[in-house]
Amino acid sequence: MKLASLKNGGRDGALVVVSRDLNNYVAVPQIAATLQQALDNWDAIAPQLEQVYAALNAGTAALAQPFEQSLCHSPLPRAYQWADGSAYINHVELVRRARNAEVPASFYTDPLMYQGGSDSFIGPRDPIFALSEDWGIDLEAEVAVITGDVAMGVSDADAAKAIRLVMLVNDVSLRNLIPNELAKGFGFFQSKAASAFSPVAVTPDELGGHWADTKLHLPLLVELSGKPFGKPNAGEDMTFNFAQLVAHAARTRELAAGTIIGSGTVSNKQGNLHGSSIDNGGVGYCCLAEVRMYETIEGGKPSTGFLKFGDSVRIEMRDEQGASIFGSIDQTVAHYQERR
Amino acid sequence: MKLASLKNGGRDGALVVVSRDLNNYVAVPQIAATLQQALDNWDAIAPQLEQVYAALNAGTAALAQPFEQSLCHSPLPRAYQWADGSAYINHVELVRRARNAEVPASFYTDPLMYQGGSDSFIGPRDPIFALSEDWGIDLEAEVAVITGDVAMGVSDADAAKAIRLVMLVNDVSLRNLIPNELAKGFGFFQSKAASAFSPVAVTPDELGGHWADTKLHLPLLVELSGKPFGKPNAGEDMTFNFAQLVAHAARTRELAAGTIIGSGTVSNKQGNLHGSSIDNGGVGYCCLAEVRMYETIEGGKPSTGFLKFGDSVRIEMRDEQGASIFGSIDQTVAHYQERR
Repeated sequence: MKLASLKNGGRDGALVVVSRDLNNYVAVPQIAATLQQALDNWDAIAPQLEQVYAALNAGTAALAQPFEQSLCHSPLPRAYQWADGSAYINHVELVRRARNAEVPASFYTDPLMYQGGSDSFIGPRDPIFALSEDWGIDLEAEVAVITGDVAMGVSDADAAKAIRLVMLVNDVSLRNLIPNELAKGFGFFQSKAASAFSPVAVTPDELGGHWADTKLHLPLLVELSGKPFGKPNAGEDMTFNFAQLVAHAARTRELAAGTIIGSGTVSNKQGNLHGSSIDNGGVGYCCLAEVRMYETIEGGKPSTGFLKFGDSVRIEMRDEQGASIFGSIDQTVAHYQERR
Repeated sequence: MKLASLKNGGRDGALVVVSRDLNNYVAVPQIAATLQQALDNWDAIAPQLEQVYAALNAGTAALAQPFEQSLCHSPLPRAYQWADGSAYINHVELVRRARNAEVPASFYTDPLMYQGGSDSFIGPRDPIFALSEDWGIDLEAEVAVITGDVAMGVSDADAAKAIRLVMLVNDVSLRNLIPNELAKGFGFFQSKAASAFSPVAVTPDELGGHWADTKLHLPLLVELSGKPFGKPNAGEDMTFNFAQLVAHAARTRELAAGTIIGSGTVSNKQGNLHGSSIDNGGVGYCCLAEVRMYETIEGGKPSTGFLKFGDSVRIEMRDEQGASIFGSIDQTVAHYQERR
């Protein structure tokens, strides 16, 4: 099943069921007004949404309308929790190598995770607003899941069962604000801008065999200003799967339905800078920081800059037939003044 | 105006208006079903709630019923954002002195703030559930505000205007999990359990002259298992006021209505261990970590333990007539198995 939230002037959007091919949708106010409402009472509501989805795909849904990704909010325009892991340890290894530091052994058994702001996500086609390019604006292309209610101390197996939906995310990061902020010891805050999620969230069964061991085994496609930048496989080199990330988040507190857990920047192990870019036969990157780390490791300092006003970011995932699964995140960086 | 959310079997409780003396309430489903709904449309809804409040205090509200604090959720049982500052630098100074470290100069101009979990707060009279006493369960008695919508890059003056409500909070901390977690560099996550807020949230005007310069100038009263433990004045030694904390949170992203910003553990500068406890004429403490820091500074190691199953925590604030302003947080530590 595929779900989206259409912008309707409200804070939560209107829940709609989207056809598998992303061509049509059906509004479902009689079932649930918002995605959060559906998640709050999933066991009762999901079967009703599945019926609509089946009719929509069969071409028998009476009130189907053309689906426009550009009219979407993020599936949860605001959420009660957004916790982002850093499950692709290759990314962490590059960070550390770039500053000649070791990766602590515990990082391979104990996930890194930070609590992110979830009160005001931006839509998948909304601008990435910032007040200054000097913040070092970077994308982070990731996979994320939305959970149901999760008990404190949940097992990995039960955590897997709590995964309701899967989507993509651009976890916008402000790289030049990170060093000072992490030095303060309390983690990211100002260095994480508002995140954007893919237009569509899908149930895990929709991913077929590509969803295995609570990992999503398909390339994550990233373009920067129209040029291919990354295509790493999100199922490879993921040290912690989503079940483990959910269980980590729930170790000392319950998670409420609608909790979003992110994978962290997708990153595959590759050779060196020359061989890692798409142009040179590699799988490229899901953030600018990563190519800058390769540059630092090999040349002593980074040469690639961060995003500038006017630059665009596109993030998508396609199935083996080339069909877009989640729709695309497609954003342009803009000065916040333009919003006001 | 005083507002609360009564438990009603749902995830958000039922918004009610509470009389100034906390003796009576009126349900207001015809105005707003939940506090979040009221915050989402505050300018239109607050005046209607104020009318009910005036009638309730005048004894002319037709449907007034006796108010029971024990039937309350936290005012926002779940919120879209909970960001907690550490505005009482005395607390940080003690932490550093206990480990012979300097406080960086920037800490006096750049607030510490962490992003907390907000998906599943506990009620003011609910147990503090944990799976193990070994986690080092501690209270943190604080003041918190709820904001309206806030623009990115807001000034301190405009941030002050965005403060809608004030309440108390027990930011439960798991001290023995903190060192490993902070060493990982991403801030608190598992080391912060679910927080509880006071039964009642109040508009700043309700605090009269005690609310000045967006600080709350009254003693915060803390009891541990029935014994006085702390009474520091929340208006003293607060290095950053709430306007500054809100502006800090909004530096690189908008804040949505219903954002909760905390003060951090209230802490007044005092002399030494002997003179700081209430028994010895001091104002005591708002967390166990603080008395342990005094013990460490003076004796080399802490001797006071953290909370055990069965211990209780009471947090309250009274006006000059001795009347409770927010009602009291009153919680007992219990094993999570008892919940299931």
